[in-house]
Amino acid sequence: MNYKIDNLQYCKWSREVFKINHEAGLDAVHVTVVYHEDFNEFNSKIEEWNSHFKENADLIFLGKSYKDIEKAKIEKKTAIFFGFQNCSPIEDDINLVEKIYDLGCRFMQLTYNNQSLLATGCFENFDSGVTNFGKEVIKEMNRLGLVIDMSHSAEKSTIDAINLSQKPIAITHANPTFWHAVKRNKSNELLEILSKNDGMLGLSLYPHHLKDGTNCTLESFCEMTAKTVEIMGINKVGIGSDLCLHQPDSVVEWMRNGTWSKSKNFGEGSKKKAGFPKQPEWFVDARGFLNLDKGLSKVGFNKNEIDGILGNNWFNFYKRMN
Amino acid sequence: MNYKIDNLQYCKWSREVFKINHEAGLDAVHVTVVYHEDFNEFNSKIEEWNSHFKENADLIFLGKSYKDIEKAKIEKKTAIFFGFQNCSPIEDDINLVEKIYDLGCRFMQLTYNNQSLLATGCFENFDSGVTNFGKEVIKEMNRLGLVIDMSHSAEKSTIDAINLSQKPIAITHANPTFWHAVKRNKSNELLEILSKNDGMLGLSLYPHHLKDGTNCTLESFCEMTAKTVEIMGINKVGIGSDLCLHQPDSVVEWMRNGTWSKSKNFGEGSKKKAGFPKQPEWFVDARGFLNLDKGLSKVGFNKNEIDGILGNNWFNFYKRMN
Repeated sequence: MNYKIDNLQYCKWSREVFKINHEAGLDAVHVTVVYHEDFNEFNSKIEEWNSHFKENADLIFLGKSYKDIEKAKIEKKTAIFFGFQNCSPIEDDINLVEKIYDLGCRFMQLTYNNQSLLATGCFENFDSGVTNFGKEVIKEMNRLGLVIDMSHSAEKSTIDAINLSQKPIAITHANPTFWHAVKRNKSNELLEILSKNDGMLGLSLYPHHLKDGTNCTLESFCEMTAKTVEIMGINKVGIGSDLCLHQPDSVVEWMRNGTWSKSKNFGEGSKKKAGFPKQPEWFVDARGFLNLDKGLSKVGFNKNEIDGILGNNWFNFYKRMN
Repeated sequence: MNYKIDNLQYCKWSREVFKINHEAGLDAVHVTVVYHEDFNEFNSKIEEWNSHFKENADLIFLGKSYKDIEKAKIEKKTAIFFGFQNCSPIEDDINLVEKIYDLGCRFMQLTYNNQSLLATGCFENFDSGVTNFGKEVIKEMNRLGLVIDMSHSAEKSTIDAINLSQKPIAITHANPTFWHAVKRNKSNELLEILSKNDGMLGLSLYPHHLKDGTNCTLESFCEMTAKTVEIMGINKVGIGSDLCLHQPDSVVEWMRNGTWSKSKNFGEGSKKKAGFPKQPEWFVDARGFLNLDKGLSKVGFNKNEIDGILGNNWFNFYKRMN
């Protein structure tokens, strides 16, 4: 069986978006439920999602394990997996890790761009690695089967997390720096360590992570994929598009600034390009998976390999989580 | 005018404790209001303090500036200055810095023993220094006149804070490592930098910070004071006793563990010595200031110098805060 999985989206959720993902043939999507929200605010987000599940029961349902991806395939729906891009909902309380798991969370970044209580983000000047509290949280996440996601983390913190974790970790949405050297992308060395420890990389389609940004070509993206597979192996690479479909620019401003600064921080953008960047025309939304299929074929991947990259590799990773 | 100031206590507050401080002649005490409490919990603590102020109006009142120390001297009362030993009450929100200031907070540690969102604590393995959020918070604390306290912070973080801050910072309760080399005490190099930047050190009477612990002699403590004054100058050294009078052992366990670990952490103690250590007999409570007076005289300090160490130096620091 072949599965199609986008392992990171943070869209402005609506029936229209769920339809697009359905049309794209996605069996599962890992969705970002929160960034900077605390535990109570996460609970409010769940209420919003419960409404989505009720109103769109013909298209989506909450996924909790790989079996829900199998179910989604059979029922022609998309399983929605909850994830966090920051650890804010566990606040400073180890006991909240089990609570967020029970509420459906399956992926949690230990950091967003800044230092968290657990580890260092990629926009800090110094990286102290996984903290005392971080070590305790990793043990707890391992025990529960909650995936450690280091997409926005700094390098030492990420290597620490890989070494400390008893289970494979994920970088759900990032690209290699050999292709596009920005803070959010990852070094060859890190990708090798990730792969050796059975971890996964989800390649990002977010323009700030792409060579030439919005003007990145499908060919260039697929050639980068081929080189990344050379580093990590054919089974460790998937897609985590980082699609932020229909989100207003105020959202990317909030993602970057949260409530930590009185002056405006532009993160990966700049004062002149402060908003969401425009997607490349070959990946405007998840229906771009069809273009990836063609593009990957053109650079020499066979059908089995393409199926792996477009979903089966993530499916097998989800299987290993259990 | 001479002032007597203990610039750190975390007692189990009661009329009895306020009477002891009064008997000791303390014109001002910087009290720890919270460790790991969030903003709402800090508000609950204020309610407790409001009861104390009401029920003990003949002994104490809330201090907000050096003028309240002068007022306390005239009225023969003790001015109580609020401080935090961790930055938990500002959560991840820069806007809460002004709110805690408005609610009376005058000292805030950027970290307790572990990594915080602002800086690194002295019990972490790696010290990344002041974080992005930390830099913003320092600016805001400077603007308001809220003192940065680095007593429990790691060395690089402390030096960062000294360099980033436009105003003098404080180490309200710690001793030099040349005398007793433990993680919570401070290196000569750090004390020199602190002093050069017009910062203050409050010498601690907490047994884990003392050479020979509970058995530390008054003579040894006063000799250490003399050497510290050689490093920092006569105007930069005061007392921050770290007295935890009448607190049950459950409190020190909570101070160390908060909610960050499922296994028990013994901090400065050990499994065999998990509770609060016994105070040296010459400093059982604040009335020990009288012994310090005698002891400092014996090691060669004159009256003016002793008055500085026992309160006037802190008074002048409070004056510089405004």
